[in-house]
Amino acid sequence: MERKILLKEDEMPRYWYNILPDMPTPVKPPINPKTMKPINPDDLKAIFPSEIIEQEMSSQREISIPQEVLDIYAIWRPTPLVRAYNLEKALGTPAKIYYKNESVSPAGSHKPNTAIAQAYYNKKEGITTLTTETGAGQWGSALALAGALLGLNVRVYMVKVSYEQKPFRRSMIHLWGAEVYPSPSDKTEAGRRALEENPDNPGSLGLAISEAVEDAATHDNTNYALGSVLNHVLLHQTVIGLEAQKQFEKIGDYPDVIFAPCGGGSNLGGVGLPFIRDKINGKDVRVVAVEPASCPTLTKGIFTYDYADVAMMTPLLYMYTLGHKFMPPSIHAGGLRYHGDSPILSQLRKDGLLDAVAYNQTEVFEAGALFAKTEGIVPAPETCHAIKGAVDEALKAKEEGKEKTILINFSGHGHFDMTSYDKFLSGEMKDYEYPEKEIKKALDYLPKV
Amino acid sequence: MERKILLKEDEMPRYWYNILPDMPTPVKPPINPKTMKPINPDDLKAIFPSEIIEQEMSSQREISIPQEVLDIYAIWRPTPLVRAYNLEKALGTPAKIYYKNESVSPAGSHKPNTAIAQAYYNKKEGITTLTTETGAGQWGSALALAGALLGLNVRVYMVKVSYEQKPFRRSMIHLWGAEVYPSPSDKTEAGRRALEENPDNPGSLGLAISEAVEDAATHDNTNYALGSVLNHVLLHQTVIGLEAQKQFEKIGDYPDVIFAPCGGGSNLGGVGLPFIRDKINGKDVRVVAVEPASCPTLTKGIFTYDYADVAMMTPLLYMYTLGHKFMPPSIHAGGLRYHGDSPILSQLRKDGLLDAVAYNQTEVFEAGALFAKTEGIVPAPETCHAIKGAVDEALKAKEEGKEKTILINFSGHGHFDMTSYDKFLSGEMKDYEYPEKEIKKALDYLPKV
Repeated sequence: MERKILLKEDEMPRYWYNILPDMPTPVKPPINPKTMKPINPDDLKAIFPSEIIEQEMSSQREISIPQEVLDIYAIWRPTPLVRAYNLEKALGTPAKIYYKNESVSPAGSHKPNTAIAQAYYNKKEGITTLTTETGAGQWGSALALAGALLGLNVRVYMVKVSYEQKPFRRSMIHLWGAEVYPSPSDKTEAGRRALEENPDNPGSLGLAISEAVEDAATHDNTNYALGSVLNHVLLHQTVIGLEAQKQFEKIGDYPDVIFAPCGGGSNLGGVGLPFIRDKINGKDVRVVAVEPASCPTLTKGIFTYDYADVAMMTPLLYMYTLGHKFMPPSIHAGGLRYHGDSPILSQLRKDGLLDAVAYNQTEVFEAGALFAKTEGIVPAPETCHAIKGAVDEALKAKEEGKEKTILINFSGHGHFDMTSYDKFLSGEMKDYEYPEKEIKKALDYLPKV
Repeated sequence: MERKILLKEDEMPRYWYNILPDMPTPVKPPINPKTMKPINPDDLKAIFPSEIIEQEMSSQREISIPQEVLDIYAIWRPTPLVRAYNLEKALGTPAKIYYKNESVSPAGSHKPNTAIAQAYYNKKEGITTLTTETGAGQWGSALALAGALLGLNVRVYMVKVSYEQKPFRRSMIHLWGAEVYPSPSDKTEAGRRALEENPDNPGSLGLAISEAVEDAATHDNTNYALGSVLNHVLLHQTVIGLEAQKQFEKIGDYPDVIFAPCGGGSNLGGVGLPFIRDKINGKDVRVVAVEPASCPTLTKGIFTYDYADVAMMTPLLYMYTLGHKFMPPSIHAGGLRYHGDSPILSQLRKDGLLDAVAYNQTEVFEAGALFAKTEGIVPAPETCHAIKGAVDEALKAKEEGKEKTILINFSGHGHFDMTSYDKFLSGEMKDYEYPEKEIKKALDYLPKV
């Protein structure tokens, strides 16, 4: 059989899948942090275009992908579904392991799937500039790419310590023509206040969000774009799972279990939601979120309203959370260091439609290194989490002597993460204790709603 | 029309194309540096397996690709042929621009096409270890990948200054399980001698070759692998051009002109030789080598016998050369800093079957940045050369109002070259004067044969 299951461009899905109308328990609405009442769509108009706001709460099951977005997707989509024969052989497993390779996008991850869509809707409504925050730069570079391809200005607030220590994604952002500022910056009130308090403030994702939102709210024709957590972001990412379904159909197979790394939930939702639709309709399929043991939101968090950011500027979301004050240990999978999770995925988890496991980072890198040695491609640290889940499942299948079909969402490559691999290979990488005390403390700060 | 022209795995070429029997003027044989007589195939047995030696001088037009090699190629091959609609639009050209995307291999370039093949033939003949040299690490990482996928040990001698300043490809080599030593090292006689003379010797490609060859010649079951220049390397790379021909056939088009970067010639030969076969048979197609103006081998070199390395350890090759003593300026396209060129391509150039142009590096990066902004993917500095050639051709077509089909060999991505883009974007990148004096001086050292 062919190693890669490919689709033609005209086989690309023509719509994204919106799970909201299919959910057994509806998602609770976000709460306005000022009024502490459910948010009014108009509240979001200062920073989001109206079509995105509509998508955020839509009851329409299938939402058409605009032709202009499809045309840009076609630069790298449909992405290949690849059978990991060499990994199977190395594990000696009867399981079939497939990976959906989202690392083939120009930014190297699944992030452009929503960046392109968000840039498109903003442009359509006359917006000329998008702002956003970024940690290590994965999302910031994806939005910069979208800006380059659609002709929008992009301003990225990059957590200062990453800006200084991880310069290469910053370079990519520059190359694609976007501006990038170390946060805290002197461009915003929030940034200036932080610098006044402490000129050496190393920055945080929460603060960078505050800066990007303020920038968007205070400038004409300027909106804000978020790379995960929200419903419309997961919606755009469903192109991954919809493609995978067509690919499995082509070969007459279907996954028993799907593994995806989970931080805010965008790639997990992207690959998983179309399969969870099948599950709701009676299909036997398991979707598993793989988390870092040191930021175990779905496995150890509690399900409640909490702020999406540290600075308590954003609406409150009903989600699994470790508390917005929780500062996860500095693991290498920066994209998974988030205290909360997508409200959609949280509700599905609560309702038993989504599984979750957590691993320590050295065992996760071990799985990633095995993947690189057998399948060639170097996975991002986030992606290594999904691989670890799949490897364990494949070994279990071997023990039980069961044939099983496993799907990994290969969310991104690790070309900009080689220092992390160096740490792993030299034996210097350490695991963090499960941060029980810190989480307990953070939960004390949960808002009373 | 679809943006990407894809082939199925079973449409992959089943043979490599060997141009030797079709050349109007035969390539002159290499000369043994000790006897100064044409080399005896047996001379090569200390470092190459017999099937590779046969391929080096074969008169067979089509050489079967072993099934095991095809199976590994299938991890990323066939590679897409992509229509660069956005670039065309940005240039306002009537020309159609396509790029053959070789950056999708796990190592990020075309280099694994031959690394896999060489590892295969060596393994088949009982070799357990391969040695090689690498500059910035592009070739070393490709051979490390091949070692991982085929189960061979790989020892890479990496030019010390690159080893220290460009750590990320070194990390990839480690990740794929290979050993990598800064050269000069204390592992070889040649390295120890160099360190004795100067403990701070920063290393050079010539010295690293000497170390790798010595290592192979003095250890059991150990052979040497070279990433460019030689006939068998170009042979393995022809899979690129053979695929491209099938892809153009699918859409009923054919390139008028093909641009590829040229250092030792492996990617140029790979994409170009199958089309030069057509040209020999009367087809109207132009293949253009794009060189750096500061290392203009095909555009300003002379056609004669010269050593392939600085240390005069290797056989002498009949080729265009700037003199083995010529040390090219430190341009960012490290893969193009070679004093000589493939003997096959040199002879074709002499016979008017291959064109060549040379550009300065800032104009080359300008073209690369335009490509990144319009098509998304970040090209390697070497690849930017081909893009610059294509951009100029497309602008000429615009002036002349001519439709034209242009093919770029997109030899690799620039994910490990972001510091070079930083230099370009900040305006710190400089062009070098054409090194006329240095070349003149180096030509004085040409061997008398």
